[in-house]
Amino acid sequence: MSKMDCTPDLKIAERRAVVLVSGGMDSAVTLALAKERGFIPYALSIDYQQRHRAELDAARNNALGLGAVQHKCVPVDLRSLGGSALTQDDMAVPTEPSSGIPITYVPARNTIMLSIALGWAEVLGATDLFTGVNAVDFSGYPDCRPAFVAAFQALANVATKAGVEGAGLRIHAPLIAMSKADIVLEGLRLGIDFATTVSCYQADALGRACGVCDACRLRSAGFVQAGVVDPTRYF
Amino acid sequence: MSKMDCTPDLKIAERRAVVLVSGGMDSAVTLALAKERGFIPYALSIDYQQRHRAELDAARNNALGLGAVQHKCVPVDLRSLGGSALTQDDMAVPTEPSSGIPITYVPARNTIMLSIALGWAEVLGATDLFTGVNAVDFSGYPDCRPAFVAAFQALANVATKAGVEGAGLRIHAPLIAMSKADIVLEGLRLGIDFATTVSCYQADALGRACGVCDACRLRSAGFVQAGVVDPTRYF
Repeated sequence: MSKMDCTPDLKIAERRAVVLVSGGMDSAVTLALAKERGFIPYALSIDYQQRHRAELDAARNNALGLGAVQHKCVPVDLRSLGGSALTQDDMAVPTEPSSGIPITYVPARNTIMLSIALGWAEVLGATDLFTGVNAVDFSGYPDCRPAFVAAFQALANVATKAGVEGAGLRIHAPLIAMSKADIVLEGLRLGIDFATTVSCYQADALGRACGVCDACRLRSAGFVQAGVVDPTRYF
Repeated sequence: MSKMDCTPDLKIAERRAVVLVSGGMDSAVTLALAKERGFIPYALSIDYQQRHRAELDAARNNALGLGAVQHKCVPVDLRSLGGSALTQDDMAVPTEPSSGIPITYVPARNTIMLSIALGWAEVLGATDLFTGVNAVDFSGYPDCRPAFVAAFQALANVATKAGVEGAGLRIHAPLIAMSKADIVLEGLRLGIDFATTVSCYQADALGRACGVCDACRLRSAGFVQAGVVDPTRYF
């Protein structure tokens, strides 16, 4: 074999991954981890007509700042389905802890977002998907648990051309077993500026947080537990 | 217990089901079967920016004509992901049979559509979803096979409030093992007027069919094999 035949295997050299990014802290850390693990990240946000739209701007800026080669935002109108305080203007975002699955739960949201990520992964030839779901300091949503991630991976491998004809698809949820404090420390190690991430369910147009919703309370407790100054901008 | 306490159990009396309807033959038969089996059908179409948009009008008219109590159309922009002749204007719809998975395959389409149906089912309190996927006279798409339906049902039951806290969710695919001829005969038994259904991948604005794409060829062969006159309007 001559030297001329030794073309590099681009499929190995270019391990593409689709990373779901929301603009929040968890998905920023997830994207940075995907890059650290050698993947070329393609960032995907879903505009589901959420009330906290500032997160979509944060998602784009953070994704590109953290090294995504592309950021795509796909609109899907979940507001038209109703049933969640995150998409219904006539349902208030709770400011106190609740028991059970809270009304900020958006029916099937993570299933829908991963499904669209799966579609883009097929088009890109990516076999790896990353999601920032977390089952420790979370709000009790069913679609944030390890059983959900495993079931989605099983589905992905029978649902797609890549799963059926190729080497198989993997769903990575690197934060799933981390506490919020762990995520803060991991983010600092990776050089993430959390001041530019937006977690609040009712962030204002400038991306400033309310400090009292579930997402704010979990995030703020994470900084306290990690012993790190909280850089969040509150309104 | 007095008579006053004997309020009917609305949850049993009103068995709601979300039925995915595309405007084509298979989903019309599926909706009629859901109704025959005692479900109250809520019809859902997904506007994924497909090139054959006449099917969305047919979907609405047929669904309401066949007894759906509501028809909802949720937009999700799969055109922005690319990768399919059904969403890319610069890829022609094939007019000859091909081997393998054809270029009309829309990456993760059925996963995405069922995910959105799952979200609406949760909001409605429906525990049953119907899809017209078929694994006999089909185009070889991976997301039309029994393994896909089973994997989606498993996912649905870990992904949702209804699956985790309730009695479980069921995904019905009543046509999955039927030939196109069986579907034609089943539709006639149920009183469906197939002239108003649109299957063609490149139907014109009036819903008239090309007669040569994969979907037209499968449909037309179904009528021949069933020994029934094909009422399809061709352009």
